[in-house]
Amino acid sequence: MRASRLLFATLRETPGDAEVISHQLMLRAGMIRKLATGLYTWLPLGVRVLNKVAAIIREEMNKSAMEVLMPVTQPIELWEESGRAQAYGPELLRFRDRHDRPFVLGPTHEEVITDLARQELKSYKQLPVNFYQVQTKFRDEIRPRFGVMRSREFIMKDAYSFHANQASLEETYQGMYDTYHAIFNRLGLNFRAVQADTGSIGGNGSHEFHVLADSGEDDIAFSTESDFAANVEMAEAVVKGTRPAATQALQVVETPNAKTIAEVAALLNVDPSQTVKTLLVRGVADEDGKYSLVALVLRGDHELNDIKAEKLEQVAAPLTFASEDEVKALGLEAGSIGPQGLSIPVIVDRAASVLADFVAGANQAGKHVTGLNWERDAQITLVADIRNVVNGDPSPDGKGIINIKRGIEVGHIFQLGQKYSEALNCKVLGEDGKPFVVTMGCYGIGVTRVVAAAIEQNFDDKGIIWPQSIAPFEVAIVPMNQAKSPRAVAAAEELYSELLAAGFDVLLDDRNERPGVKFSDLELIGVPHRIVVSERGIDAGTFEYKGRRDAEARELNKADLLVVLKG
Amino acid sequence: MRASRLLFATLRETPGDAEVISHQLMLRAGMIRKLATGLYTWLPLGVRVLNKVAAIIREEMNKSAMEVLMPVTQPIELWEESGRAQAYGPELLRFRDRHDRPFVLGPTHEEVITDLARQELKSYKQLPVNFYQVQTKFRDEIRPRFGVMRSREFIMKDAYSFHANQASLEETYQGMYDTYHAIFNRLGLNFRAVQADTGSIGGNGSHEFHVLADSGEDDIAFSTESDFAANVEMAEAVVKGTRPAATQALQVVETPNAKTIAEVAALLNVDPSQTVKTLLVRGVADEDGKYSLVALVLRGDHELNDIKAEKLEQVAAPLTFASEDEVKALGLEAGSIGPQGLSIPVIVDRAASVLADFVAGANQAGKHVTGLNWERDAQITLVADIRNVVNGDPSPDGKGIINIKRGIEVGHIFQLGQKYSEALNCKVLGEDGKPFVVTMGCYGIGVTRVVAAAIEQNFDDKGIIWPQSIAPFEVAIVPMNQAKSPRAVAAAEELYSELLAAGFDVLLDDRNERPGVKFSDLELIGVPHRIVVSERGIDAGTFEYKGRRDAEARELNKADLLVVLKG
Repeated sequence: MRASRLLFATLRETPGDAEVISHQLMLRAGMIRKLATGLYTWLPLGVRVLNKVAAIIREEMNKSAMEVLMPVTQPIELWEESGRAQAYGPELLRFRDRHDRPFVLGPTHEEVITDLARQELKSYKQLPVNFYQVQTKFRDEIRPRFGVMRSREFIMKDAYSFHANQASLEETYQGMYDTYHAIFNRLGLNFRAVQADTGSIGGNGSHEFHVLADSGEDDIAFSTESDFAANVEMAEAVVKGTRPAATQALQVVETPNAKTIAEVAALLNVDPSQTVKTLLVRGVADEDGKYSLVALVLRGDHELNDIKAEKLEQVAAPLTFASEDEVKALGLEAGSIGPQGLSIPVIVDRAASVLADFVAGANQAGKHVTGLNWERDAQITLVADIRNVVNGDPSPDGKGIINIKRGIEVGHIFQLGQKYSEALNCKVLGEDGKPFVVTMGCYGIGVTRVVAAAIEQNFDDKGIIWPQSIAPFEVAIVPMNQAKSPRAVAAAEELYSELLAAGFDVLLDDRNERPGVKFSDLELIGVPHRIVVSERGIDAGTFEYKGRRDAEARELNKADLLVVLKG
Repeated sequence: MRASRLLFATLRETPGDAEVISHQLMLRAGMIRKLATGLYTWLPLGVRVLNKVAAIIREEMNKSAMEVLMPVTQPIELWEESGRAQAYGPELLRFRDRHDRPFVLGPTHEEVITDLARQELKSYKQLPVNFYQVQTKFRDEIRPRFGVMRSREFIMKDAYSFHANQASLEETYQGMYDTYHAIFNRLGLNFRAVQADTGSIGGNGSHEFHVLADSGEDDIAFSTESDFAANVEMAEAVVKGTRPAATQALQVVETPNAKTIAEVAALLNVDPSQTVKTLLVRGVADEDGKYSLVALVLRGDHELNDIKAEKLEQVAAPLTFASEDEVKALGLEAGSIGPQGLSIPVIVDRAASVLADFVAGANQAGKHVTGLNWERDAQITLVADIRNVVNGDPSPDGKGIINIKRGIEVGHIFQLGQKYSEALNCKVLGEDGKPFVVTMGCYGIGVTRVVAAAIEQNFDDKGIIWPQSIAPFEVAIVPMNQAKSPRAVAAAEELYSELLAAGFDVLLDDRNERPGVKFSDLELIGVPHRIVVSERGIDAGTFEYKGRRDAEARELNKADLLVVLKG
């Protein structure tokens, strides 16, 4: 495309109301403009990226699923059948048509597709089947923000599969897991498939797909050596090695004014990892609502994971810390509690359980003990995984170590089971001639969100750095001294035709602007390859090439240039 | 694609509530299913067609316009600014979000794009510019019908151009006129660009694009020899030749009980084209509201065109026929009025004005005259075009004759002028440094409607007959005796791979069904080319080929087959 015919809507200043980098850069690069809160118009540059993302998703989905297109507007009756009309809350936008019939703007399409399936699917022979669409959705967020990252109107690729049994669901689920890897790889993104809790959609078994970026909202723990990845809250914390033998004698030391682990460790000149903290929480209540306390012991440098603790049969859920009075009733004082000599169950985290000669509270105000050793000095009721994983932990699958990064959720695959098919009575005839309720899976990708996430992962202080597969243009050609050099213009035009013919998506920057302005714009909008055509280069038989991540430009002849562009 | 992996949702019976053939066939072929009144889910087969239509539109639009994507939901404030919040009526669906802010579901996007333009366009140097989108729209029709032909939710390609002046608008308008020809030609449709009234959107200058089909709602008059085409109501009626000399004497004849032109002509044994009818209508009123009558004279076989008559300065608008009392006050009687001896203006249609020796009412009850001749027997106040064109009329551009067919409107291009830019104060700086209001054009294509219109134009009693460019599959391969002939299956697979590699969109019908069922399905869904692979053919080195419009199949060798498939 010729830049003179493109709406360049680049901004020099960062708009004040854009909090995250992708929102700022999408506005500055002229990709989007706000129409109203949480509603954005995609400008030509943005649509080019959006269309490329959607095309890659379609190509990969078409290998195993069929594209359909469901209405944005849905009759509310279906949501009443599934029970979500009540459950979904005010994010579900409701309206009435001119005949006063109630509808919703679809935030998701489980009900509509299940309604379709119960009409069209008659026999187990038609299963499994997987339908997808790429479509506009609406979620009436109370506080839309971060541009298209959390907008009210957005584009989703949503897929729904139907199965005769759980085994078939699992097979398709694995297929979608692989398809998602193919998609995000082709999108050129650094991502992780993460074991996830299923949240409100329900079901049993799900993965989130996260684009790794420092600005992400979620902490992802993944292995350096395998494809293990999980939300930090979900990742199993394992421990390497066994407990060493005791070498020190137990000793009570004065630790006045040392309240925190850090203060105690500093005072006693030990690493926090050589200390433990002992937390008192409520145990499960009996029939009369009475409960006793439970001690949870973790290494001083570790954090309690509430979800894991709540899952223990000894511990009350939701997790509730002992009150000051309850602690005092046991003759203890917060700040100096230790696991030794306690009359309540002592549940010890795996990592704390392999310590020897460690530091703990002395169960006396203002005092700690050193040289504490399990069994000799303190008894363990149960060893359990009750902490968050940390960088450097062994990966639970035994391969590599844990690395924690922030991620942006861009995809989610679910094993839905029979939640919707049961509610909407979606049955087909089985091999035995009897009707049975089908089993479902669902698979989403936030298409508009992917664009923002790609930017959050790929930018510098000059602007966006697109992966080549989704860049608005793969290559930009800038004729040098355009106004006065017909030779440079002619050579640029020739290269433009040649690269177009070779299948590249090329921008010829023929705007009547200074080269500096063009260079800044091209860096801001993130074109991966920039080629400058000048008289000097023509004479030397070379082109000035600069990759978007390169610090310096370099001279390349045509053959080398083509090799570089193909990447 | 393998048919075993496609949702074949073909129906043998025609659904009862589908009135038009495209709706019936889209349901029967398994292209769409109704979700609620005026809301349809597109099934896999339908989406394939829809995507092909959209892709062709995008390819042609991209040559001169930039794709954008505006939200479906729009703040009502913009509609209040343009005045359409009031003017649009109940087809504009309004709703409130969770914060009680009023929005609409966009039926069209003039306001949103003009709002964008007033923010992004600063200078005449950025003009002309043309933005388009392919997007879901909503119009709350009081009585949605005909399937996707008149649904509530539908997909439009809408484009909006911005200009410094009328000349620039006209240039882009002509460009879009040509682009639309390119699009509808590539879609394989028989269509006409029709001069149109601009209707409610306003402006000066517009064409409708109609797909010709017997079921169309509009009558289109077009030339057999040129690209002249107009709505019948808009087409100029011209007359060939001049009035012959009188040869008969004026004679009064008794015509008791002959009330209609047909009855009079039969009684007198003349052709209705040799008679005239004289209609009395109100003339324009004076300041006191008083008016006299005007006589309109047309050939007996012609129809008055109200719009043309109303445009005459002698005639009152809206056109109002004289009452019985008014007729009697002139001493006349309905059924026997003639133009001779009238005391009121006599406005004669061009075709009636060149008659000689014709029949008219005698201005005496139960009597007519024969051998009537203008000037000798009756005076003409004015000759004017006041009738509808008919088949066989000369084309007004002088080339060929008029042919009238029914059309389905699938596209519309408008010269909007400054209606929206004025209302929304969309100004840019001119060459003189002063801001001026921009001039706009808009250009729509009903993407979902095109699919239905293509069917209305191309079907037979077996089903749909797709133009190859938008067929869900271009070619279907059926292995004969699939269950028992591994040779046929292998040869079919080989041909399948070969045709896919050659770039054809191929369906391999590997379903476990009888050939008869497959053949009916393939005809119903309208695949243009069918190839049967059988042992007999393998031995003879041929394939059984049948084009969708062919009466009989024929045997072709591979080379000939490829020639036929390329069309």
